[in-house]
Amino acid sequence: MAKDIIHPAPEDPTLTERVQGIDHNGSSVDTLVPVERPLTLYLNSQEIVTVMTIGDFPEELALGFFLNQNMLTDNDIIISTDYDSDLGVIVVRTKRETDYEEKLSKRVKTSGCAQGTSFGDIMENFEGVKLPETKIKTSWLYSLGQKINATPSLYLAAGAIHGSVLCKGNHPLAYMEDVGRHNAVDKIAGHMFKRQILPDDKILYTTGRLTSEMVLKTVQMGIPILVSRSGFTAWGVQLARQANLTLIGRTKGKRFLALSGTQRVDYDIDPQTIPGERTEIQRKASR
Amino acid sequence: MAKDIIHPAPEDPTLTERVQGIDHNGSSVDTLVPVERPLTLYLNSQEIVTVMTIGDFPEELALGFFLNQNMLTDNDIIISTDYDSDLGVIVVRTKRETDYEEKLSKRVKTSGCAQGTSFGDIMENFEGVKLPETKIKTSWLYSLGQKINATPSLYLAAGAIHGSVLCKGNHPLAYMEDVGRHNAVDKIAGHMFKRQILPDDKILYTTGRLTSEMVLKTVQMGIPILVSRSGFTAWGVQLARQANLTLIGRTKGKRFLALSGTQRVDYDIDPQTIPGERTEIQRKASR
Repeated sequence: MAKDIIHPAPEDPTLTERVQGIDHNGSSVDTLVPVERPLTLYLNSQEIVTVMTIGDFPEELALGFFLNQNMLTDNDIIISTDYDSDLGVIVVRTKRETDYEEKLSKRVKTSGCAQGTSFGDIMENFEGVKLPETKIKTSWLYSLGQKINATPSLYLAAGAIHGSVLCKGNHPLAYMEDVGRHNAVDKIAGHMFKRQILPDDKILYTTGRLTSEMVLKTVQMGIPILVSRSGFTAWGVQLARQANLTLIGRTKGKRFLALSGTQRVDYDIDPQTIPGERTEIQRKASR
Repeated sequence: MAKDIIHPAPEDPTLTERVQGIDHNGSSVDTLVPVERPLTLYLNSQEIVTVMTIGDFPEELALGFFLNQNMLTDNDIIISTDYDSDLGVIVVRTKRETDYEEKLSKRVKTSGCAQGTSFGDIMENFEGVKLPETKIKTSWLYSLGQKINATPSLYLAAGAIHGSVLCKGNHPLAYMEDVGRHNAVDKIAGHMFKRQILPDDKILYTTGRLTSEMVLKTVQMGIPILVSRSGFTAWGVQLARQANLTLIGRTKGKRFLALSGTQRVDYDIDPQTIPGERTEIQRKASR
């Protein structure tokens, strides 16, 4: 990837830990594993949530989380963000006064914690979104997959991690990783907010499954195309169709499957010219 | 798998949906995807949480969730469970009066929703647990992997799903699946509670990553050995070592890596005799 874009930093010693164990031969080995640490997000004076994260891009994560939960809007003015890495706390302060006491108490009862997101909050904006008719060329789809898989990442260095990549055409612009795929996506949302990047001509690539939660977040972010190596859930497909989001999954080698917004797919290359994947860069199964 | 054990029912039409799309050749195809629907769990008169689930084994899921959150104990007497599939509600009634108002309000502030679990609740029991020194033979490890991968499952039929399998020796006893790996594990916990199955000589196999949450749940359930095809997080390893839980990950073909409780691993077979995996049964990457 080019130097001016955001990409993973697998060499950052704070993001992985070296641990000792034994392998299938009974030999002692040491290996890298990604860290996972709590980060508590405050919006002004209110403690909102504690998430488990690898710990990079805390500001992007906090901003993106609040944006995707409709606690911030694109028009909000951020006065300051204070991050304390020792305490694991980040405080985002806005010009507008915020109070989500009611929303927070409601979440206890209605949230699918198992999904990691409060659906009620996210659904608020879902109905009104109109996604642009940006095309995705199949040559970009193949090229993006190859570039992303070949980028040095925490996934390749330590495994057990999800990635989300903001792309334009066949160019990855920002590649974020985290232990939870929702965190990686939230970091992308925070990055777009900070840099005032418009979603209309973008493609979001994720290593995770195309569940309802991922679809809702992508629509919330205004991105018209969501691509994954992994599979789909029925509700994810249904919500994507409702929002006219292009949903492309099970991408691997020359194969892919589009289950929503298929009118955006522009077949500009013969799939028979696409080589199979080398085993060593294979990520999660594409089923 | 034998007939008397619990295994996935990929033929159950309520668990998958057939959807149409287009593939890499531009051809129209239809494919199966797993469903994902909300289920609201009540404990007596209190609404506790809404989880996203495929919808099978609702009683096991509810009981296991409450057990793993320390809202039920092994000694609790269940008076009734009422499940309404149309409303997506299950109510568990206990002889003991329960009131988790305080716990629920606390969770808003401290829970890692991103992890799907309230750590505070689960950590309550963590300190006191003493796991038995049950051995795991490496021949069982290989045999379990082969049996589980070859079992007809929603994963093989529709993808995008996690599995958890309760095993004894080289026998899978109960194989549960769900869109979230924590749900699949909770179903195992509920199944063990209903059938009064003791954890001491069991092995828990999961398709998901070995994160702090998975380690905490396994320890909570009293199972001494946790195995996965996927990778580790640093905090997962640290908690497993603290609890003396055997943690074996990145299992694929002849390979595996044990990063905690390695004294339980009994090398009884030459790994060179283990064949590589056939591509068609490969699941998630083992990194």
